[in-house]
Amino acid sequence: MPKERVLSGMRPTGKLHLGHYHGVLANWLKLQDTYDCFFFVADWHALTTDYADTHAVNDNVREMVLDWLSVGIDPEKAVIFLQSSIKEHAELFVLLSMITPLSWLERNPTYKEQMAELREKDVHTFGFLGYPVLQTADIIMYKANRVPVGIDQAPHLELSREITRRFNHFYGEVFPEPKTLLTEVPKALGTDGRKMSKSYNNAIFLSDAPEVVTQKLLQMVTDTARMKRTDVGNPDVCPVFITFHVIYSDEATKAWVRQGCQSASIGCIECKKSVIQKVIEALEPIRQRRLELEKQPEIAAQALAKGAESARVAARATMAEVKKAMKLSAI
Amino acid sequence: MPKERVLSGMRPTGKLHLGHYHGVLANWLKLQDTYDCFFFVADWHALTTDYADTHAVNDNVREMVLDWLSVGIDPEKAVIFLQSSIKEHAELFVLLSMITPLSWLERNPTYKEQMAELREKDVHTFGFLGYPVLQTADIIMYKANRVPVGIDQAPHLELSREITRRFNHFYGEVFPEPKTLLTEVPKALGTDGRKMSKSYNNAIFLSDAPEVVTQKLLQMVTDTARMKRTDVGNPDVCPVFITFHVIYSDEATKAWVRQGCQSASIGCIECKKSVIQKVIEALEPIRQRRLELEKQPEIAAQALAKGAESARVAARATMAEVKKAMKLSAI
Repeated sequence: MPKERVLSGMRPTGKLHLGHYHGVLANWLKLQDTYDCFFFVADWHALTTDYADTHAVNDNVREMVLDWLSVGIDPEKAVIFLQSSIKEHAELFVLLSMITPLSWLERNPTYKEQMAELREKDVHTFGFLGYPVLQTADIIMYKANRVPVGIDQAPHLELSREITRRFNHFYGEVFPEPKTLLTEVPKALGTDGRKMSKSYNNAIFLSDAPEVVTQKLLQMVTDTARMKRTDVGNPDVCPVFITFHVIYSDEATKAWVRQGCQSASIGCIECKKSVIQKVIEALEPIRQRRLELEKQPEIAAQALAKGAESARVAARATMAEVKKAMKLSAI
Repeated sequence: MPKERVLSGMRPTGKLHLGHYHGVLANWLKLQDTYDCFFFVADWHALTTDYADTHAVNDNVREMVLDWLSVGIDPEKAVIFLQSSIKEHAELFVLLSMITPLSWLERNPTYKEQMAELREKDVHTFGFLGYPVLQTADIIMYKANRVPVGIDQAPHLELSREITRRFNHFYGEVFPEPKTLLTEVPKALGTDGRKMSKSYNNAIFLSDAPEVVTQKLLQMVTDTARMKRTDVGNPDVCPVFITFHVIYSDEATKAWVRQGCQSASIGCIECKKSVIQKVIEALEPIRQRRLELEKQPEIAAQALAKGAESARVAARATMAEVKKAMKLSAI
């Protein structure tokens, strides 16, 4: 039986942090061994919100791809490519635009939420409304069977499934309906206790040097109710415990922390020190690989070029089928 | 001084009629001698309204291009091509989507009108709303200075100009603002006295044989107030006079008709017979060329291929500039 195909993309936000690693990349590393994977840099999608200032897109793409390769995303196993290098995505976007009811997009819960969230940016644009149409083109272009999504993104994929069904309804069964590949994502909290995010300035980056990691973790907030060293704490509401001990510490350490915190027999600094080394040990090989890759920028460029070549072959085959199904072949 | 560039397109509606000829093609014939012309078949645009049934698109493209060539649109003078064969139009559409405010599209008067007019088709789609964005991509891709439009289409081009200004505002002066090339279009009425239109089934096609032209004109409505042969008529409200005598008859004939009709000294049949031969004489060379071209379908195919090649060179140059201006060049 041939492997199922997985498609997943990331918007180029620059250097990736531990939230990206545990939320996406750790999963991709597993997927690339068991599925036929297409991973792409969604640079056009980045424009839906950042059209007014694009000076960082190019750097963001480069930094992100360096991180992908550094963590072990392997161009020999997975097809990695830049969305904008495959013009067929735009072509399929045009065609899907024609069949996508406006109301589906307007009622899309993700659209409404993001409109509210992104108040500092003007996202009342045609492209922002059409985000799910472009996303659908990205997915079905490769006839992906599976799309890894967190629980909260499931409605977005449902819209892609509806657009796919509508295409198949009008023109015949060209595309499989993409299914979710639900991913359990551990909570990654940043140094201020909020969700780890570049824009909150609370992130630990994959490329952070050991001393930076140490400093960030030492300054990280803990259980805010534990005001004094002598107060007892609650690890289950402590960002350091929830994010770092849960992911990086062994059972013995976690038990020691839990007991020590709840009895105030250890302080927050002591607790942090017991996990900092583990985080650094996990990050150090990634950072070392990254330093190597930064010296040889052609490696990342070649990986994307190789991926684009494979993606293009697949995309052209799909578009030939699409045009035939839609009876649009040229005279 | 280099020639100004003109861009114009037609949706592929199949065989063209005299309304198209006098409304568009006669103008193109003049333009191709004085401007640097790009004429394209807007096959993607056809999908904005006809997505649900695409079986005719391909035939419609072929029939229309045969008509273009038959009337004398010359691939040696003008670049003629199929919109869908230049994927860069889709790419630029994606990019322009990102910067186009939804409200500009929603308030577009043409959009509202067409929504009302096309009640039998479901055009509440994302693609239909985005028609002006795709149209803008078509125009500015070739940095066209001039777009021939009838007075009623001027608002549509104004929207393209606004999108162009917004692009230049964000990313620098890449595109000239396309200006209208106002065209005086003689009224072409069909055999039932309404605007000549394929969908009204009242059209005289460029490919109609002499006996068909004769029959259609003999059956054409005249001044509906002239009920009997002995009633006097009014040429200024007679569709035969307004469309056919005005375009095809010499001054002497027009004076003879005007006098004869107003005095009831000639009947409608006599009046029609005095112009039918002129119409046939004008159409016959077109029809003969068309019959030749139908026998050699490779000529039309080659014309489009040659045009696509030139268009692609221009489009790629523009997109390279666009990506540079938007700072989107690949890593």
